[in-house]
Amino acid sequence: MTASNELDDSFHVFDTTLRDGAQREGINLTVADKLAIARHLDDFGVGFIEGGWPGANPRDTEFFARAQQEIDFRHARLVAFGATRRAGGTASEDPQVKALLASGAQVITLVAKSHDRHVELALRTTLDENLEMVRDTVAFLTSQGRRVFVDCEHFFDGYRANPEYAKAVVRTASEAGADVVILCDTNGGMLPAQIQAVVATVLADTGARLGVHAQDDTGCAVANTLAAVDAGATHVQCTANGYGERVGNANLFPVVAALELKYGRKVLPEGRLREMTRISHAIAEVVNLAPSTHQPYVGLSAFAHKAGLHASAIKVDPDLYQHIDPEEVGNTMRMLVSDMAGRASIELKGKELGIDLGGDRELVGRVVERVKERELQGYTYEAADASFELLLRAEVEGGPLKYFDVESWRAIAEDRPDGTHANEATVKLWAKGERIVATAEGNGPVNALDRALRVALEKIYPELAKLGLVDYKVRILEGKHGTHSTTRVLISTADGTGEWSTVGVADNVIAASWQALEDAYTYGLLRAGVAPAR
Amino acid sequence: MTASNELDDSFHVFDTTLRDGAQREGINLTVADKLAIARHLDDFGVGFIEGGWPGANPRDTEFFARAQQEIDFRHARLVAFGATRRAGGTASEDPQVKALLASGAQVITLVAKSHDRHVELALRTTLDENLEMVRDTVAFLTSQGRRVFVDCEHFFDGYRANPEYAKAVVRTASEAGADVVILCDTNGGMLPAQIQAVVATVLADTGARLGVHAQDDTGCAVANTLAAVDAGATHVQCTANGYGERVGNANLFPVVAALELKYGRKVLPEGRLREMTRISHAIAEVVNLAPSTHQPYVGLSAFAHKAGLHASAIKVDPDLYQHIDPEEVGNTMRMLVSDMAGRASIELKGKELGIDLGGDRELVGRVVERVKERELQGYTYEAADASFELLLRAEVEGGPLKYFDVESWRAIAEDRPDGTHANEATVKLWAKGERIVATAEGNGPVNALDRALRVALEKIYPELAKLGLVDYKVRILEGKHGTHSTTRVLISTADGTGEWSTVGVADNVIAASWQALEDAYTYGLLRAGVAPAR
Repeated sequence: MTASNELDDSFHVFDTTLRDGAQREGINLTVADKLAIARHLDDFGVGFIEGGWPGANPRDTEFFARAQQEIDFRHARLVAFGATRRAGGTASEDPQVKALLASGAQVITLVAKSHDRHVELALRTTLDENLEMVRDTVAFLTSQGRRVFVDCEHFFDGYRANPEYAKAVVRTASEAGADVVILCDTNGGMLPAQIQAVVATVLADTGARLGVHAQDDTGCAVANTLAAVDAGATHVQCTANGYGERVGNANLFPVVAALELKYGRKVLPEGRLREMTRISHAIAEVVNLAPSTHQPYVGLSAFAHKAGLHASAIKVDPDLYQHIDPEEVGNTMRMLVSDMAGRASIELKGKELGIDLGGDRELVGRVVERVKERELQGYTYEAADASFELLLRAEVEGGPLKYFDVESWRAIAEDRPDGTHANEATVKLWAKGERIVATAEGNGPVNALDRALRVALEKIYPELAKLGLVDYKVRILEGKHGTHSTTRVLISTADGTGEWSTVGVADNVIAASWQALEDAYTYGLLRAGVAPAR
Repeated sequence: MTASNELDDSFHVFDTTLRDGAQREGINLTVADKLAIARHLDDFGVGFIEGGWPGANPRDTEFFARAQQEIDFRHARLVAFGATRRAGGTASEDPQVKALLASGAQVITLVAKSHDRHVELALRTTLDENLEMVRDTVAFLTSQGRRVFVDCEHFFDGYRANPEYAKAVVRTASEAGADVVILCDTNGGMLPAQIQAVVATVLADTGARLGVHAQDDTGCAVANTLAAVDAGATHVQCTANGYGERVGNANLFPVVAALELKYGRKVLPEGRLREMTRISHAIAEVVNLAPSTHQPYVGLSAFAHKAGLHASAIKVDPDLYQHIDPEEVGNTMRMLVSDMAGRASIELKGKELGIDLGGDRELVGRVVERVKERELQGYTYEAADASFELLLRAEVEGGPLKYFDVESWRAIAEDRPDGTHANEATVKLWAKGERIVATAEGNGPVNALDRALRVALEKIYPELAKLGLVDYKVRILEGKHGTHSTTRVLISTADGTGEWSTVGVADNVIAASWQALEDAYTYGLLRAGVAPAR
């Protein structure tokens, strides 16, 4: 492992996605996953990557062996996590401590108990022996040339129960040679004001270099981390996308963004913050969780604007409506169309689509009315860009874009006496003066309709061969007076170079799907540059 | 509308899910949705429910008319949102202001500009005229007997740019008769320490009663809200589950939980905090977003512990490992070791249903396996109690409960050349030795299938006449890597004395609906005390 941290050592961005983050319900990382995440974190520029607990399970042991061989770390140092030695033994002969040394990691984080009741109930030893375990283990590992950080587990609860003992653990660790003592809100119940007061007092009373490790059980982990920094902590432990046990850990990305953009504190190598959105999404892909669309800074919606009220002013000065320039974190501003939108957002959206509405107030007003009316029926255009563009073009060009005229369609779903299923659809339509009848089967009636429509249209428009459905969503909307219900279908379609979404609304799922399919194919032909029949 | 708020007026929990929360990308609320959410919020016990902007769109206007007629509010007061009058006019003749009065809402929140550049660029008027707009509109509405709150939009950014002007807006609103002036972090870029300092200064300098409205763009909205309370704000604006524009708003649930459990401040009527988890999930269902599993306090994972290191200590004293007792917020601790937890909950559930599993370990183990296997396929029994009971009975009684045997079914959806629609279904089944063939039409293929099944069964089981479908939900479940997709249908059925839910999963919506319908009718017959054919 080579590591050339460009930043000085005065502030630590310490990532524990691979250790504490992996405790999140639903995450189960292979060694290959861990290596991929370590590469992303190093690419992002964190100072320390806690890789796991070597010796505790074969996966973590293998990870340390391979990470040091296979990854050429540019920014980060690899950290092994472990515990203080057993009660009554010596650190130099403790198998768990030896496994930490054997991992080859040059930096080691030791977890230590700092809450008196945990020492007694979970560790089943005396308060004095716990201090001795901390002293002995830190002293032994530093004597072996390792840099040691000490995580004080349950520190804030422990401080509330017995502040003198909690501080004694910090002092012992620091005096034994630990570079940083991390105060952990393990149960996550703290609020920023509490964190700030305790960190300030412990710093004043012990003089130890302090770090913070916050869990998000009150929804304040990011703020708790920053509160500790305000009080003098110079080491923050976080996880990518806030993954972690229960609710999760302090999210690395908003913590780093706040430090760089709000505090003006350089904690990443030059230019790395702009990679944050990409890296957040890449790590979500590796752990196989959909990236949170509403995550601060990096979510798809983080810079999306919907309100009509704001849209007119966004045109004048976007910085009045966003707390940072989204490009600073590699994200982008998006305008959403909805019935709350007014003229300004329609004009902006038109511009985005390359359709000049040329300040035609009457035209824009008509589009606004049309959107409002359709959204009242259940359509939603913010999630159906392509249907919105077709609606807009229909108003601008004086009528809908037509590549084909549908005469009729029929879909059949059947469960036969012999136990087999059949889903079949027939479509009859006119295109370029020709009447076409096509029938197809599918794994459901909508799929059969999609195939029949494609079979019919491909005879005339071979461009459609590239098109494929990539997503399909159904929502039942309650009707105006609870008697009727309405079905809304959203379809995403791709052609290899892009993806677009269309919407259909009807009193049943088949008819709604049909509308969305018609829009999807019409838009696909428009994208392909085919001249409309109209 | 009658409202008898049990709490005094000294602290306001103000919910804006229906107004600001509805700005979240992907949320599109019908009037029925808004009414349902208002009922849940009132049930939870918030003091104020901001329902929307009457006059701005037909949906919000209709909501105010119906909410006041149809909802008998027990705790909350309904609030209309609107803006200060137009520049250069008078409030009493401003159509937008008149629409606020016409809504009938007794409490009105007015949004006002407090950032000098926004006044100039977005409002295109002078700083003095903006103050006059605030004064005139507040004075007019209070003269009409309305209670007025003023939202100072972009307050914190405005305070940074021009603190004297920002404070002048607060002072003007307060002096004109506004009960509370709310400082809004509209762009969401603030951190708690900044919020706390500004609120404290503005409170000292203006003496106005202050509230706070935080957005979550830095991931600190909950902490920012609490920081404002620490500085003396006595009115917090939040949204259920943190829904809102971009990243979202301050999440109502962790804010209220922190105030009640961490501050010891009573902000909800007695006993309502225990309903928090249920209400959070119910609102997510109405807006059709999956409840966040990792939401503080109310998420499925919020009190889930991966066993191992802590397991034995958790048994000794669970409070050492959780920041609050989950029951205080209506949630439960879960151990993720699984099998044990699985068995215990199956036994509990059996007891709940009056089915004695008599400690039969093998039987319980079989049920656990069956549930795991089905949930892996996409079934969800949490939301389908009737399907779960049928599954449990099938294991206990050695085979599924059978009132009828289906030979085949077929559903047709058709869009005819003359523009008419047809939805028709045929069902062939055996019941009590008789073969029955029934055909029915419906407003969609699922509705037609439901009717055909009912027509067929009613000949044999007249008890079914009372049954009616009351809810129908479809969700497309994505496969692990987006290749296959599966459809899940949840159906709720009622018979006048109760309601039950059933689930179906298949590769298409018709087949999944059919499964849920079969379970729904089977369970209806069981409830009616009809002896099964088996």
